[in-house]
Amino acid sequence: MPNQESQSQIAPHLFVILGATGDLMGRKLLPALHHLAQQGKLGPRSYVLGAAVDTDLDDKAFRARARRWLVDDGVSPAELEAQWCNQKLFYQTIGSGGADDYRALAARITAIEKELQLPGNRVFYLALPPEIFPTVIQRLGEAGLSEGPGWTRLVIEKPFGRDLSSAEQLNAVVHQHFEESQVYRIDHYLGKETVRNILVFRFANSLFEPLWNRDRIESVEITVAETLGVEHRARYYETAGALRDMVQNHLTQLLTLAAMEAPAAFDARAIREEKTKVLRSVRPIRLEDVVFGQYGPGTVDGAKVQGYQEEPGVAKNSQMETFVALRVEIANWRWQGVPFFLRTGKRLPCRMSQIVINFRCPPVSMFRPFDACEIHANALVITIQPDEGFDLRFEIKAPGQEVELQSRSLHFRYSEAFAPLPDAYETLLLDVLLGDATLFVSDDWVEASWSIYTPLLHNRPPVLPYAAGTWGPAESNHLLRDLGRDWSAP
Amino acid sequence: MPNQESQSQIAPHLFVILGATGDLMGRKLLPALHHLAQQGKLGPRSYVLGAAVDTDLDDKAFRARARRWLVDDGVSPAELEAQWCNQKLFYQTIGSGGADDYRALAARITAIEKELQLPGNRVFYLALPPEIFPTVIQRLGEAGLSEGPGWTRLVIEKPFGRDLSSAEQLNAVVHQHFEESQVYRIDHYLGKETVRNILVFRFANSLFEPLWNRDRIESVEITVAETLGVEHRARYYETAGALRDMVQNHLTQLLTLAAMEAPAAFDARAIREEKTKVLRSVRPIRLEDVVFGQYGPGTVDGAKVQGYQEEPGVAKNSQMETFVALRVEIANWRWQGVPFFLRTGKRLPCRMSQIVINFRCPPVSMFRPFDACEIHANALVITIQPDEGFDLRFEIKAPGQEVELQSRSLHFRYSEAFAPLPDAYETLLLDVLLGDATLFVSDDWVEASWSIYTPLLHNRPPVLPYAAGTWGPAESNHLLRDLGRDWSAP
Repeated sequence: MPNQESQSQIAPHLFVILGATGDLMGRKLLPALHHLAQQGKLGPRSYVLGAAVDTDLDDKAFRARARRWLVDDGVSPAELEAQWCNQKLFYQTIGSGGADDYRALAARITAIEKELQLPGNRVFYLALPPEIFPTVIQRLGEAGLSEGPGWTRLVIEKPFGRDLSSAEQLNAVVHQHFEESQVYRIDHYLGKETVRNILVFRFANSLFEPLWNRDRIESVEITVAETLGVEHRARYYETAGALRDMVQNHLTQLLTLAAMEAPAAFDARAIREEKTKVLRSVRPIRLEDVVFGQYGPGTVDGAKVQGYQEEPGVAKNSQMETFVALRVEIANWRWQGVPFFLRTGKRLPCRMSQIVINFRCPPVSMFRPFDACEIHANALVITIQPDEGFDLRFEIKAPGQEVELQSRSLHFRYSEAFAPLPDAYETLLLDVLLGDATLFVSDDWVEASWSIYTPLLHNRPPVLPYAAGTWGPAESNHLLRDLGRDWSAP
Repeated sequence: MPNQESQSQIAPHLFVILGATGDLMGRKLLPALHHLAQQGKLGPRSYVLGAAVDTDLDDKAFRARARRWLVDDGVSPAELEAQWCNQKLFYQTIGSGGADDYRALAARITAIEKELQLPGNRVFYLALPPEIFPTVIQRLGEAGLSEGPGWTRLVIEKPFGRDLSSAEQLNAVVHQHFEESQVYRIDHYLGKETVRNILVFRFANSLFEPLWNRDRIESVEITVAETLGVEHRARYYETAGALRDMVQNHLTQLLTLAAMEAPAAFDARAIREEKTKVLRSVRPIRLEDVVFGQYGPGTVDGAKVQGYQEEPGVAKNSQMETFVALRVEIANWRWQGVPFFLRTGKRLPCRMSQIVINFRCPPVSMFRPFDACEIHANALVITIQPDEGFDLRFEIKAPGQEVELQSRSLHFRYSEAFAPLPDAYETLLLDVLLGDATLFVSDDWVEASWSIYTPLLHNRPPVLPYAAGTWGPAESNHLLRDLGRDWSAP
């Protein structure tokens, strides 16, 4: 984020999207690029080359499809930059993805750059199924596309492997052809403004850092709750599950941002190092500290919904987890003894992503002499969605003669203070173009994260049922038994 | 506040108000008692005996006058408890205030108690000019009214003396006739809900106490600003000035509440002891740390107003201060080196009472490597009026690619969380009836406070002019010169 070229100084470039006819392109990448172009943030010499298996598409047909996608995405005809679509978008097939196809891609790139007098800066964005990441990276390298006349950057969507060894293999393939400094592993959670702000909140304010440790904090709860079920993703989900799909990446990112030490500088290397260091201190997770769940039929948002095993594409006896809760301990000076509780699931009562920092109680109660304090403890709630902001729960005296304590919040909402927040993808695509890797996932981090969770993939806890529309199996509350309470109410 | 009888258990009593035809009675005491009676908070056997110099008033005329006062105060005829006025109010003259008059008062009290079968619990409330406090207290004592068949409590309005020696003399007279435990010195600021809540805020929350010291706090600013001029109080004000009228009591109360150590218990004795302890650690104030000001003509709330010396009843060459700003240091373990800035004045730009706790900056800036931090520091703002609540100013990243920090507030307003707050007088009168002296001023505190300010009365700094509608003489900003900034903007 810092020390970067200003937005108008984005170098002329070609943004190559592999998988340019897929879902991610239509729903996220194209709208984000279009909107950035509209705002003038990409600079005047920014071009997009879509590449995909379709052999019957050409530039013109691709541009027409782009316009349709944008309209489908809610762009009104008045807002639609038809000029941008017609002048900035190109298409090149990669056919069956053989070596010849990638040589043709390379030739087309060179041709476009020559025609448009571009200096040869290139982004390759893999909007592809993860199974073919290794092959595609290999092909790009073999076609000489891992370095060009200008800078070359490779953007990889999650998942980065499906366990430690596959992640290591993927990283090995990447590094065979690309320097780590060229690689931008996207976790779109890191593009969210509130997530980006966690570090600013922690280190630009003197209020919180003195409290941010085992002396003052009792526990941390991280929840990413979805109301959706598996939807159209059953094929993928049956091979993944919540631990791979959500915990290893999004929740663990939130964990490392909340727990990391102050970086030596606010730059990509320092921040990524500190984040990885947290993971290296995570104590191996004990099986009894993990709860897996799978939703059965139930009611979400007032509508009856079917159970996971009834969803199209899901095996009738599937034991895939749609819910994970676990207790993580970080055995370092700052956090030893402070449990971090992570929880995510599909078909939960509400859509909500939140970090709750539970502070310790005051040592004594002023209000009941000699008793240890039983006051409701202070908590800082960082809400990432849906209503981005911060709440600091504190105790206050209710008006009146008696000292009656009530919990209230000091609160802040982005929506009250700023215009609507930018889309996470816009933020991250700009960062790629600016060469700022701060908010992208490093090779070390990916492997360290998989190290923590891979044992649970090999030695899985039982999958417990929960009714759709509930907060998962009741057993997830048992993780907090030492604290004598359940998860914080959202 | 704690361990008290519940509100319905207020013992039957007679509330004797000396000075019952005066301004305070009509504007504050009578409305407060009426409203408490309406709410059933006084219990069924609560009676008021007004006493004053007027010899031509009787119960009936006094009751009629009470009804008029209440209507003048905004009580609608529908709300007016005419029953209460007619059944609960009595009047007794104290004529010229001689010994005979007080014996007559004592006889009337006994007669009323006998007639109404009251157990002899009595409050004596001195709503009188301070000059006659000593005489009246003497007379009450000599008439045998300092102890009765039940409890007897003496309520004294400020000012408690006009310097150290007069305060000591007043306390000596009081103690000649009353135990300190019978005495309730009213500072109506302490009845305000936000002021009462300062201690709860500090000691019922684990968040703030670890930060509440010289390691984390850079400075504290306490402002009590009025837009009013001297109004109809010139006669009194010409003998008092802002130091006596506001600083020695209200601002110093806020200072001691903000700075005190955790009391051993939440009771009157422990809290009052801790408050006084703070004052004993206040370093003698240097003359160069004090700015006196006097308002000249100017504009307040869009209206042209005259200067202090033009006000009716004010001497043309008056050097009385209508503004005081000063720097106080508390030389104890918690606060050594942390300046407390106090400021009050008439004809300032807005009506506002606020405590600002300025935290130190973070030690380094993440965002500009190697530089000491120049970030806007965090601050906790406790607003007592007009909009009671708390604001915690923190730094946040503005949405967007660059790390641009902006100050925003986590905020809390009583008005958003609770029904309208009770009037300070209602709160304090109830406390008197409940025998809870927590929020009243102790003899020790009064004398310790006067010890601090009396040298400035004898060796006064020059009185500098300021235009009405400004924040006082520019010199008041010089007090903060070490911090390299001015007073916090309100």
